[in-house]
This record gives sequence, C-alpha cells and structure tokens, in this order.
Amino acid sequence: MQKIGILGGGQLGKMLLQSAANYPVETYLMESDLECPAAHLCHHFVKGDIRNFNDVYDFGKELNAITIEIESVNEEALEKLEAEGVKVYPRPAALKIIKNKILQKQYYKDNQIPTADFVVTKTNNELNNHLSFLPAVHKLGVGGYDGRGVEIIKTAEDLPRAFNEPSVLEKMVVIQKEISQIIAINASGEVALYPPVDMVFDKHLNLLEYQISPADIPEKALWKIEAISLAVVKGLKSPGIFAVELFIDNKDEVYVNETAPRVHNSGHHTIEANYSSQFDMLWRIMLGYPLGNTEHILPAAIVNLIGGDGHSGEARYEGLHEVLQMDNVFVHIYGKKQTRPGRKMGHVTVLSKEKRELEYKANRIKNTLSVKV
Amino acid sequence: MQKIGILGGGQLGKMLLQSAANYPVETYLMESDLECPAAHLCHHFVKGDIRNFNDVYDFGKELNAITIEIESVNEEALEKLEAEGVKVYPRPAALKIIKNKILQKQYYKDNQIPTADFVVTKTNNELNNHLSFLPAVHKLGVGGYDGRGVEIIKTAEDLPRAFNEPSVLEKMVVIQKEISQIIAINASGEVALYPPVDMVFDKHLNLLEYQISPADIPEKALWKIEAISLAVVKGLKSPGIFAVELFIDNKDEVYVNETAPRVHNSGHHTIEANYSSQFDMLWRIMLGYPLGNTEHILPAAIVNLIGGDGHSGEARYEGLHEVLQMDNVFVHIYGKKQTRPGRKMGHVTVLSKEKRELEYKANRIKNTLSVKV
Repeated sequence: MQKIGILGGGQLGKMLLQSAANYPVETYLMESDLECPAAHLCHHFVKGDIRNFNDVYDFGKELNAITIEIESVNEEALEKLEAEGVKVYPRPAALKIIKNKILQKQYYKDNQIPTADFVVTKTNNELNNHLSFLPAVHKLGVGGYDGRGVEIIKTAEDLPRAFNEPSVLEKMVVIQKEISQIIAINASGEVALYPPVDMVFDKHLNLLEYQISPADIPEKALWKIEAISLAVVKGLKSPGIFAVELFIDNKDEVYVNETAPRVHNSGHHTIEANYSSQFDMLWRIMLGYPLGNTEHILPAAIVNLIGGDGHSGEARYEGLHEVLQMDNVFVHIYGKKQTRPGRKMGHVTVLSKEKRELEYKANRIKNTLSVKV
Repeated sequence: MQKIGILGGGQLGKMLLQSAANYPVETYLMESDLECPAAHLCHHFVKGDIRNFNDVYDFGKELNAITIEIESVNEEALEKLEAEGVKVYPRPAALKIIKNKILQKQYYKDNQIPTADFVVTKTNNELNNHLSFLPAVHKLGVGGYDGRGVEIIKTAEDLPRAFNEPSVLEKMVVIQKEISQIIAINASGEVALYPPVDMVFDKHLNLLEYQISPADIPEKALWKIEAISLAVVKGLKSPGIFAVELFIDNKDEVYVNETAPRVHNSGHHTIEANYSSQFDMLWRIMLGYPLGNTEHILPAAIVNLIGGDGHSGEARYEGLHEVLQMDNVFVHIYGKKQTRPGRKMGHVTVLSKEKRELEYKANRIKNTLSVKV
C-alpha cells in the first residue's frame, strides 16, 4: 500500500481524506493544530510546522508521495524530498513560481499568457512613479492568503495602504465575470478539464456570493478560458490539480488572475455534482490510476459558510435545520471549533438541472445559514 | 458537540465515518482489530470487544448516542446504557428481536406480517417430524452472519447438515425477485423510504450478482413492499435505519425474508446515487436533523467486490485500473489488508439513466475486478 502525506489539516485536507478512504492508500497528515478539521481522518497524524524544513523533511522522507492543501509550506524541504525520489504534487518548481505573486506574474508574461498589466514594486514609495497605472490592485509577493495581502489602490489617496515589501501592482480589469477553471494533469501529461465555474460576486460588497457550475460563458470566451488555462498548467510541468482563476472583461477578453496548485474552494461542488471530484482526482493522479470523468452528474451551486462579523469564539450554526430540510442540498461543516469573522467554516452544495433553482436556493441558504458564537 | 459512538469498525463503520465528517459531531469507535477499515476515521478509537458487557458499557456511558454496524453486540450493555439516558440506534428491544431469527420470525407472525411458513426446531433430529415442510431453509437462531448459519434442506438427504441448536425451519418460497427496502425512521416516528433495490442473483450459483436501484417491480407488488416494510419497521418502535429484505413470489405475493436494523450492503449506492445516503440519513436521525431526501439523483447498480476463491492472504486488486477507466463508476475499496474467500473487500457503484447500461457495466465490472493474493 502506498504511503501518501498531506501538508496542512484544514478543510481541503479533510475532504481529501474523506475521499482517500475509497482507495487502498495509507494516509499521513502534518499540521501543528491537533484539533484541525482533518486530524482525525488520517492513518498517521504528525504534529509539526509545515513551514519548517526539518519538520517537513522528516515527515516526507519515508513516504511514496506528498501533497499540500496550502501553499505556505517549506518548499526547500520538498525540493530535497523530490531529489531523493519522493513524488511531490505539485512539483516544488511549480509551487515556487505560484507561491510568489511576482514570479507568478512574470511566468504569465514570459509564456505570453494574457494577464492584467503589472509592475513590480519593492517599497510603497515606488507607487508614486506609477500613478498612471491606477486604479490598480497591490498584491504582496509572498505571504498573502485568503484576501490578506491584497489592497485596492484606486487613487493616490489609497497609497498609504500600499505594501512596503516586494509586491505586484496590477492594472484593474473591468470585470464582466470571474471564472475558475480546475484542471487535472497526471504524470504522463494527460489532462482533464472540469466545466468552468462562475464565481458570482456581490458587486456592492465585493464579496463572493456563490459559485455556479457549469458557468454561463459567452461562446467566444469559452475556448479562450480552456486554452489559456491549459497553457498555464502545461507550462508549470507538474502533475496535480490546478485551479486557474480568470477574468472575462466587458469585451469578452480573458485574463488570468491567479493560479492555485492544489484542490480549490471553487471545486467543492464536484464531490456530489461530478463523476470524479477534484479530491478523488488528486488521489487517482497520486496513485497512478486513470484520470476520472470531470463531467457533471447535475449542475451545482456552492455557498460558502463564513464566520459572521463580530463573532469570535466557539462556533454555533444558525439555520442548519432549515437548510437540511431543503431537498437537494449537501451540507459540509468543517468542524472548526472556533469561529472568527471571515473564517471558512463550511460550505453547502445545491444540485439542480435548473439554473434558476440553483440561484434561488443559493440565495436562500446565504440568508438562512450563519455561524455565530 | 454531540459525542456519538459506533460499535464495530468494518466497512459500514467506515462509510458512516466518511459521512459523519460533514457534520459537527465527535465520533467514537469500538473494535478489537486496530487495523479495521474504520479505525483511522474517528476522533476516538477504543480497542474493545463489542460482545463484552463491560467493554460496551464503559465505551458508551459518556456518549450522547451509540449505534451499531453489526448485530452481534452486547445488547445487555446497550439496555443499561439506554436506561441511563444514552440514545441507542436501534433500540435494544428492537435489536433483541432481530438478532434472534426465532424471535424475528415470531415477531412477523405476531404482527400479521407476511413471511414464509416456519417451525422452530431445537435439535437436528426434530426435522424428521417436518419432512412435509421440505424443501426448506434451516436458519440458526443466533450467531448466523453473511451466509453462515443458513443451510438449504431440499430433501431428507440434506438432514445431516441441519443445526443441532435452536433454529428456524422455513418453507422455501419460489422466488421471482429479491428486494431490499431501506427505511429511515426518526425519533418522532417520521419515516422516509428509499426506492426499493433489486437484488439480482445468479440462479445457478445462488450468488448475488449485483443490485439495481430503483427496482423494476410489478405494480401490484410495489405498494405491498412499502406497506409490509413500514409495518415491520413501525412495529419495532425504534428510530434508525432498517433494511427489510423481501421476496416476491411467482404470484406477485410479497414476503419478508429478514430485517437488518442498521445501514446495509444493499444501500451503498445511495452514497452517490441519492440526495441523502443511508449513512448521511443515520447521522441526521442521531443528530436530530430533519430526514433527508431519499430520491435518486440517477439510478444505480452496486457490484460487490468479494475475496476470490482459493485466495487467502494480503489483498491485491486485479482489474482496478480498467474499472477506474469507466466513465460513471465509483470505486470503494474497504482497505482490509487480508483477503479470504467470500470476504467483502469493496464495492463499485455505477450511475446511469439507462438500465441496460447499469446491467452491462455491472457485468463488466464483475468480470474485470477481482481480489487475489
């Protein structure tokens, strides 16, 4: 039986392990938090710091393969493990490019992959030389995650919020739609594309409302999404699961926003809605099985369950009963004991042939289910 | 967070725990085998003998609720736990009736539930008084499981195989079809019926070929299946999941064969094929959530993966690659290290709108996938 390890024990690790239980594989997990969502679902839990060289190296050296559920891992240890024959998903060279937003943007540019214009800045003062670039988005090169490390700089007045560390200043695109394209690629370079996902934002609050798959996409944008995403993934020369986030602008042009080299929040619906989920697919890739079928069984919507504003402490779920009474929904509570504002605490998937029903129920779930203390 | 325990760590325990991970619940598992399929998927594993009073009582006394994945548990301990306020699914009084085939048959008779005629025998010699009853099935009162404890007595020549312990001698029914009806019932007595499952047997070998849901049932038998199954379950006065196995004879009459007071092999397809699976449903019942939707997303077939004849030792799966290449199949390998002839090692679910495709693929899987050493 192969021994495969996961760095990080959050909800992605948890859903990976729920899926691993269908296959003959011995699972290992490293995480510093003993009570993380995934801790109780592996064969072997190892307490350790995924950013620490020795912890990661010691964890990985007896394994056949290792994967990540978050980018902020010690990549030097992964490089050494790879050199010693442990298979790493994604490959450390790909992770290195993606982890650093400056290298990531440069990678798109070097490979002629359409992406918003950008300049690299080292200090916040430098932004004064790029006022013509505004409105723009300032992204910290290293360490940003889940909305942290990103600032919208609309006018010179916003400059005090700029980062005083190596960052990318990106021209703002007029967004018609945000799309996520999840791609699976195996060790032989075979690929499978999931139907693209429409990430529906609340335009006033700039908050993700829900996600719908398959996305409703102008025909002339669809082939671009697929072609661009494939170019991104193939250029990274690494097997694994990748989520390419893209913008479609008001002229139906397509730009890459950013790429995640792992299972992704925008693919959670694939657990119930697609023949092979993104989690199942990663195990197929790591275990050397054939790629799965990415087709939909039924179209789906995902609603994220986020820690409510002003609520920090032991989590309590309000409206769960009402949501569980709905006919075609699937509830995933991640089991984090503590909630805080903005924390990802769970998600709900809705299945239906009717897009109207997906939208209606997604909205109803958003208005019904909340996390409080 | 509620603390809920499972007695038994086989594949049913495993699939229960895969499903539990979607809800806020702290899971406990008792099993004597540290390497059983479910051992690594719970919050708290307790090594113990589920047939031992003290082990079960000590395991259960701090829990909010407890359930079983096999009938051969210590029911006296469960009775004491119930008396002390622990919720038990199924209730010990129901378990007691079902565990003993003599009491189970008597229960059907007392409640006017159609079932094959029977007599109770205490010794094998007694069968000589019931030769007019042959051909018949002799079932051991206590301790039978998975085909053990059942003998077909066609003629007087088969009498040496009869049991010399309290048993039931059942008249053989001319079977047109074998059906499994899974029913969920919650603490308020609300019920939800899954579509009945057609258990397709190889008539020559008397081996389960595969299972198809929903079953193709003569119209005048369908209401009988539902009515009879409901009568069985309601009379047991216990919340939980029940699988009622029935025969339809060649006159479309319906008889109860036997009942399992737990999640069941004939309901594994519900993981992918129904909105709320039998495993999800049991958690809903135990956590006090509303009952789920038992409807099909798509019709399904289940193929059981059974340890091959003449193969005992470390399990090896032949044909897995080919099966994983099929578009609409879901593989579940239970992770038992050792195989032996007849051991349940996994199952494969097929989804399709077309019954022909379900049958075709179920047969192809049967002919492709095997467990060897």
